[in-house]
Amino acid sequence: MTNRNVWRLAKRPVGDIADGDLVYGNEAVPALKDGQFSLRVTYLSLDPTNRIWMSDQEQYMPPVEVGAAMRGGVCGRVVESRKEGVNPGDLYAGLGEWADLIVTDGTGLSRLPEIPGVPLAASFGTLGLVGPTAYFGLLDIGQPKPGETLVVSAAAGGVGQIVGQIGRIKGCKVIGIAGGKAKCDYVVNELGFDACIDYKSQDVRAELDRLAPEGIDINFEQVGGDIMVAVLERMKLFGRIPLCGMISSYNATEASEPPGFWTMMLMRRLTVRGFIVTDFAPRFAESGAAMLGWMMEGRLKTRQDIRPGLENAATAVKDLYTGGNFGKLLVEVTPP
Amino acid sequence: MTNRNVWRLAKRPVGDIADGDLVYGNEAVPALKDGQFSLRVTYLSLDPTNRIWMSDQEQYMPPVEVGAAMRGGVCGRVVESRKEGVNPGDLYAGLGEWADLIVTDGTGLSRLPEIPGVPLAASFGTLGLVGPTAYFGLLDIGQPKPGETLVVSAAAGGVGQIVGQIGRIKGCKVIGIAGGKAKCDYVVNELGFDACIDYKSQDVRAELDRLAPEGIDINFEQVGGDIMVAVLERMKLFGRIPLCGMISSYNATEASEPPGFWTMMLMRRLTVRGFIVTDFAPRFAESGAAMLGWMMEGRLKTRQDIRPGLENAATAVKDLYTGGNFGKLLVEVTPP
Repeated sequence: MTNRNVWRLAKRPVGDIADGDLVYGNEAVPALKDGQFSLRVTYLSLDPTNRIWMSDQEQYMPPVEVGAAMRGGVCGRVVESRKEGVNPGDLYAGLGEWADLIVTDGTGLSRLPEIPGVPLAASFGTLGLVGPTAYFGLLDIGQPKPGETLVVSAAAGGVGQIVGQIGRIKGCKVIGIAGGKAKCDYVVNELGFDACIDYKSQDVRAELDRLAPEGIDINFEQVGGDIMVAVLERMKLFGRIPLCGMISSYNATEASEPPGFWTMMLMRRLTVRGFIVTDFAPRFAESGAAMLGWMMEGRLKTRQDIRPGLENAATAVKDLYTGGNFGKLLVEVTPP
Repeated sequence: MTNRNVWRLAKRPVGDIADGDLVYGNEAVPALKDGQFSLRVTYLSLDPTNRIWMSDQEQYMPPVEVGAAMRGGVCGRVVESRKEGVNPGDLYAGLGEWADLIVTDGTGLSRLPEIPGVPLAASFGTLGLVGPTAYFGLLDIGQPKPGETLVVSAAAGGVGQIVGQIGRIKGCKVIGIAGGKAKCDYVVNELGFDACIDYKSQDVRAELDRLAPEGIDINFEQVGGDIMVAVLERMKLFGRIPLCGMISSYNATEASEPPGFWTMMLMRRLTVRGFIVTDFAPRFAESGAAMLGWMMEGRLKTRQDIRPGLENAATAVKDLYTGGNFGKLLVEVTPP
């Protein structure tokens, strides 16, 4: 018998996540059964969708049961294995639990390649779920063409920073939207976005009119709310809207909808398509190969926002909903 | 000099079309210039979009100017020509005016084939704009697969009757929604729809639950309002919504939107795409050939609702917004 630290969902949050919704504890881990292995977790990925899983709203996979260990993206190394082909030291990534030790039969996990010269936080934080989210959402649904104008909200976040860089690679004019000068400077100066609007200090509508006077071809939507409305008002004929998230609504009890948008969709012949990255799981090898190539050419850079200590996960996750993270938000559970 | 009868837009309707918004008059027609020809109009097509053109709301082509002749779909025969390749007696169809005589350079018009055994009202009423609307909206955007469930609102209308029959040809379960027993009986018994819900006497939500207990794959949307909301609530994962019209909102001063739909689009990975039939103009030969083939095989039947007399056009068009038409609404301007 060994022990582990773990976050469990004690009750479903109402509105913002509150102290006591998640509880942190230490518990015994039963011995492995045949076909199982244990994973020492290195990084826990914190993602907007965590809040959805905590709720019982309509969602794309079963919610976390009250009392169960909180679900999350993880990477880590095998400690002990009673599963054929799985050996101590192997590196795995995928869906796991908010815990420092996980016992699993491997469902939802796959091998993570070790890339020479690339830190594990960067490869997990890029090639994990955010990379394929950006890749398939932009390319399959957004269908960017050279010279088109792409707007990316949450531009300095895990997905946004990748969407904008792929947009540039495809020849688009890329306008980010982010909160604060530091994030805006980063995506323009470090990542090569054409421009970035600071929604905390600038008038988003006026800036969109100035930066995209002819309108917007693609809106990669992650946020919802009034910023989404400002972008949608400026969509061009035949515009595309990959709908990746509605983070402004996850903590809300009432959703906000852009008024008159159905008529606008008709008149401007817009396409809106909701997607979840797991829909594209059979094609993850394609996105991984493309992004790995761009990373090695230096055309795709990513920033991680790493918080040490599993015990801080429940505090850190709240930053996603207030813009408090800068880059892909990870918790370092065990030193890599 | 010759004279013609014509409807002009006297002022923009507010809400429902009122007496005096359109005025009927008789006026002199100037002599033809080089490159022009005159057309004796046989049928005028009345379509939901007429109400959009009367307004100055955001729309997909310029609105009709106040004082100008009302725009409409027409077919007719050439009377006199000063354009090379255009000869008296030739049959043309396309965009024209609410008039019994039109002088044109041919812009927006093309030759209409004469099909042996098919009355002109049926060929114009099917192969005109409603046919390609149904064809491309359902096949390109709806992407029907055998065994899927398709819902068609305004099922006995010009577009709806064709959408449902193409859906059957493609192997879908087709559920129409229409107003009144006569229309429902027609689409089921004459056109082969699997079922039809009478929204005037039945509970649409209960009937959808009974007829499509596993949900809806494709909603061919023409209406908007609460019936749309009822259908959208029941969309399946990866459902498609070709957005063809929002007739319930054209006369409204405020649009109705389904609450919470953006979150549902995300969770169920729905696709909504607005379209206008003219977007597909380069491919009209494809739709025409396919539909002509189905008509000649007896697999595609259509019904026209023909009102005699151009002077009745402004009264007849109102029926589109109250469900007063049964089949494709045409005005017989001159006997064929």
